[in-house]
Amino acid sequence: MQNGATIPLEELSHKVRSIFVKAGFSAQQAESLAAVIVAGERDGCKSHGIYRIEGCLRTLKAGKVNPVAVPQVVADDTAIVRIDARGGFSNAAFDAGLPHLVARTRALGVACLVINDCTHFSALWPEVEAIAAQGLAGLAMCPSYATVAPHGGTQALLGTNPFAFGWPRPGQDAYVFDFATSVVARGEVELHRRAGTELPEGWAIDSEGTPTTDPDAALAGAMLPFGAHKGSAISTMIELLAAAMIGDLTSPEALDFLGTTTLAPRHGELILAFDPERFAAGRAGNPFARAETIFSAIAAQGARLPSQRRYAARAQTLAQGVILTEGERTQLDRLHRVGLDAVS
Amino acid sequence: MQNGATIPLEELSHKVRSIFVKAGFSAQQAESLAAVIVAGERDGCKSHGIYRIEGCLRTLKAGKVNPVAVPQVVADDTAIVRIDARGGFSNAAFDAGLPHLVARTRALGVACLVINDCTHFSALWPEVEAIAAQGLAGLAMCPSYATVAPHGGTQALLGTNPFAFGWPRPGQDAYVFDFATSVVARGEVELHRRAGTELPEGWAIDSEGTPTTDPDAALAGAMLPFGAHKGSAISTMIELLAAAMIGDLTSPEALDFLGTTTLAPRHGELILAFDPERFAAGRAGNPFARAETIFSAIAAQGARLPSQRRYAARAQTLAQGVILTEGERTQLDRLHRVGLDAVS
Repeated sequence: MQNGATIPLEELSHKVRSIFVKAGFSAQQAESLAAVIVAGERDGCKSHGIYRIEGCLRTLKAGKVNPVAVPQVVADDTAIVRIDARGGFSNAAFDAGLPHLVARTRALGVACLVINDCTHFSALWPEVEAIAAQGLAGLAMCPSYATVAPHGGTQALLGTNPFAFGWPRPGQDAYVFDFATSVVARGEVELHRRAGTELPEGWAIDSEGTPTTDPDAALAGAMLPFGAHKGSAISTMIELLAAAMIGDLTSPEALDFLGTTTLAPRHGELILAFDPERFAAGRAGNPFARAETIFSAIAAQGARLPSQRRYAARAQTLAQGVILTEGERTQLDRLHRVGLDAVS
Repeated sequence: MQNGATIPLEELSHKVRSIFVKAGFSAQQAESLAAVIVAGERDGCKSHGIYRIEGCLRTLKAGKVNPVAVPQVVADDTAIVRIDARGGFSNAAFDAGLPHLVARTRALGVACLVINDCTHFSALWPEVEAIAAQGLAGLAMCPSYATVAPHGGTQALLGTNPFAFGWPRPGQDAYVFDFATSVVARGEVELHRRAGTELPEGWAIDSEGTPTTDPDAALAGAMLPFGAHKGSAISTMIELLAAAMIGDLTSPEALDFLGTTTLAPRHGELILAFDPERFAAGRAGNPFARAETIFSAIAAQGARLPSQRRYAARAQTLAQGVILTEGERTQLDRLHRVGLDAVS
């Protein structure tokens, strides 16, 4: 270990898995949870790294997730693969469904993975990356809990509803974006509250529906969608496709079900996969090579592709291990030692 | 006719069809062209109404569209329905492909319609509305020609790349949005140029990549994506899925092919359809009823659903006919009389 503060990835994975197993999660659930949390740390996404362990344990302690759920896969001869997460976290459900999604997509050109009845806390980029690693394009979306007002509205109704896309780049990291359809993720508002700083204008409204820069007023009110009416429309589309359509909870329903925004919400998720080779069949040009022309043209302007910072952090981590602060390591040890008693 | 300035929808349809047939379009191409142009007038979308006839005729005169193309449908046992538009306008291709898309979607739950080698000028909302009219959700996207810089970039590369979605609402007008992934459509910049007014900040950059509010400088430079890096990422996704993936021209390639932004561009289009009843099968609640709960909650806040203004205009038109100015009627008569000679 370098500087006494780095930890090899495999060691961190083992530690995080152990925390979850000791807390009562099955090996299957713990494995999938640890994978996304360690991926967050690996990529420098602290907001989706080990910081999330406590939230998972709190959600378990509150009885809002099934720690030993065995996801049930329903794959028929349609283009829909359905996974019943059985109240477990979405991650094990995704991992169980991915091979089926890939097989259906290769057979049909496009297919959907529906995850129902999952508890959800993670970023979507690990999923679209996993799809891209199979040579497929992936599009993932889900509701969350109602904390965002529709454009022109006055109250929280929509979720921060993330929207993520991945495109395979042979020989290099996939083109991946993953963003909240709110102006910012809720955690950003929380960070301002803790720091005692004002929010930029345009992020939020208070409980009366009036624009505010006060983090407390914003958290009691609602965040705003990105891109005004356009982002609001996309967020609404996500409620329709990834909640109403798949027979799972919308963001207001998820909040009602949970009664708080401090635990991981229960809802579903919709993931699409496309097989570019099938779509391009019989047409001139290789789709992956042609995509590279676009990426090169973007980079040539000095513009950044999404996820570049994440991939740079990953490269550094793979070379050096994960850098954890003294406080983070102490907390990991504590979570491992006392498990559910460490969280309120 | 009321006030001497309204014209019944059917009469306008007949007139527009006649203009196209007289100019050399086949009945099939003319029918589909007239349908979307009259739909634009009907819905108060002047920017996609009879104003577009001249552009279609100019594109024909320049030899950039095949006026008698017969779209060829390729439907196999996958979830991809492919239409070769054969260089005709996208509209006849869409109309030819729709029944196949609907059949595949009902069979598989999700399916895609790929349109290749079409010339494109129309809004996408008529298409997602037509899909919604079949009880399906629809998502449509296409490139255009390179007039938009990627976020953080300095030059036009992406198109205004429209993104449209429709969700069926039994007994009433569908939930539909259709927007450019640039801050505004290029026509908005053109309107400012004609009016001699400055652009709002954030719309455009000049040819050096510097932000500008001068419409001429903006038209010589590039427009910006909506929602900063998020809209830019979505626009890039559209280049990937609806150009590189389907083996058709990207926005820079479409501009190279055409050499101008004054004619309708050649490229492809990707349309997805989802069968909500299949996706919701076996789950609690009716997806359409649950969607109405979301729409009601949005409306209860005083927020507007997208397309409301368009639907209000439609209701008025259906009751009263289309209102045309004296100048518009004169131009229609002229286009009908002199055809291609009326355009340069």
